[in-house]
Amino acid sequence: MSGILYGVSVGPGDPELMTLKAVKIINSCDTIAIPRTDNSHTLAFDIAKQACKIEGKEILYFDFLMSRDKKSLKERHDAIAQQLYPHLQKGNNIAFLCLGDISVYSTFSYISERVCNAGFKVDICPGVTSFCAIASEVKRPLVQGNESLIIMPASCSEFDELIKHNGTKVIMKTGKKLPYVKERLSEDHQLGNSYAVCSCGLNEQKIYEDLENIPDECGYFTTIISEGNAHD
Amino acid sequence: MSGILYGVSVGPGDPELMTLKAVKIINSCDTIAIPRTDNSHTLAFDIAKQACKIEGKEILYFDFLMSRDKKSLKERHDAIAQQLYPHLQKGNNIAFLCLGDISVYSTFSYISERVCNAGFKVDICPGVTSFCAIASEVKRPLVQGNESLIIMPASCSEFDELIKHNGTKVIMKTGKKLPYVKERLSEDHQLGNSYAVCSCGLNEQKIYEDLENIPDECGYFTTIISEGNAHD
Repeated sequence: MSGILYGVSVGPGDPELMTLKAVKIINSCDTIAIPRTDNSHTLAFDIAKQACKIEGKEILYFDFLMSRDKKSLKERHDAIAQQLYPHLQKGNNIAFLCLGDISVYSTFSYISERVCNAGFKVDICPGVTSFCAIASEVKRPLVQGNESLIIMPASCSEFDELIKHNGTKVIMKTGKKLPYVKERLSEDHQLGNSYAVCSCGLNEQKIYEDLENIPDECGYFTTIISEGNAHD
Repeated sequence: MSGILYGVSVGPGDPELMTLKAVKIINSCDTIAIPRTDNSHTLAFDIAKQACKIEGKEILYFDFLMSRDKKSLKERHDAIAQQLYPHLQKGNNIAFLCLGDISVYSTFSYISERVCNAGFKVDICPGVTSFCAIASEVKRPLVQGNESLIIMPASCSEFDELIKHNGTKVIMKTGKKLPYVKERLSEDHQLGNSYAVCSCGLNEQKIYEDLENIPDECGYFTTIISEGNAHD
C-alpha cells in the first residue's frame, strides 16, 4: 500500500505551540520532508526537533526557490513532487513540515496538488499562525465583536486600499517594504495604533510597541499589526 | 503570592488540535474557568476534558451574555472578573478556556483587561483557529503568494465592501445572516468559488462544497469561505 503525505504545521517558533496531532504524526512517520531555502534555513525542522523523536528517521531536504519567476517555480515544484513519489510508492508515510499554519502562505499547497493528482493520499494538520502567537505575546486581542481582520503581505496588490479599512490589519512578509508600510500607516493616522514583531517565538524575537523606533532592516519575518480604531 | 490568570486557547474542536503548551498549562492549574452560554454550552471544556487531567481541580462556570446591550455586557464582565479575584488572591493559578484562538473574537480580552488593571498577572496561550482547521479539512490553502485574507463576521459594518475584494474571505458567525451572505456572494459571482463548514471539528461537522445546497438553518457556527478568484 502506498504511503500518505502529511502536511504538518509546526506553529510559529516555540515547540510547545505544536499541536498534539502534529507531534503524533511526525513521531509516527518514517520520513521527514523539510523545506529549505538558501541551502541552510530549516526553521520548521529546528522547531519539530525540540518536541518530536527524530532519531532513525529518513530526512529529505527540499530546496524551495525564493523567486517570482513562474516557470522556474513550476519546475521546482514539479521536481520536489517527483522526488516524493518513490518514497510514497515504497509505502513510507512522509511528514512534510511547514512553519506556522500550512494554509496561510505556505508552499505546501503547490506540492500537495501534484501529489494528489499523481494518485497518492494527502492529509493535513493545521497549526498556530504567527499572527495569533504575536497577539498572545503582546496580550492584546486581534479582533472583537463585529470587527474585521485583514491579513496581507506588504506586496499585496490591494495593499493601499485594504490598509485604510477600520478593522485590524496584519501585514506580513514586510522585508524591504517596511518604510513604505510605515508611510501608508502614517498617512492614515494609524501609526499610534500599530506595533511590530520581528522573529516571533524565536530567541531573537523583538517587539516594537512604537513603530517610530523600528529599524528599516528588521528582516523578512517582521509582522506589523495595526489595530486601526476598531477596539472598544 | 497571587495566582496567575492563564487565557488558554483549546482550538476548534478536535482535542488533538490543542497545543502542548495548552495541555501543560491546564494540567498545572488548580482552577479551571469555563465560559458558558445559555447555562449549558461548554464546548471549550468538552474539548479540554479529552486531552487533560481534570480530576481534583476546582471548576468555575461563568455565564456570558449573548447580548448587544453594552451596559449589561459591561456589568457581566465586571462581575466575572470580580469572581476571579478571590481565587487569584488565594494564590490559585486559573486556566480560563477559550474555543479556537483566544485573540480572534473571544470574550476573554474583556475579562483579562479588568484582571490586569486589578494588579494580577495574565498570561496567554494561542491556539488553532477554526478557519485554519477548516482549510486543512478541505485540503485547500487559504492564501498563497501575495493574496489577502479577510476574516469578518457576517454582521461586520464593512461587510458589503470587503466581500468584493479579490482575495480569500472567511465569513464567521453566519447564523441568521446566511441568506444575506449567499446573496452578496451570488451578486459578485463568487458562489462557485465558495464553500461552507458547519460545526468544524465536532462530531456533527458538515462540509458544503456547493453553497446552493446549504440549509438556511445551519447554525451559528457556520463558516463560509470564498476563495474569490485569487489562487493561481
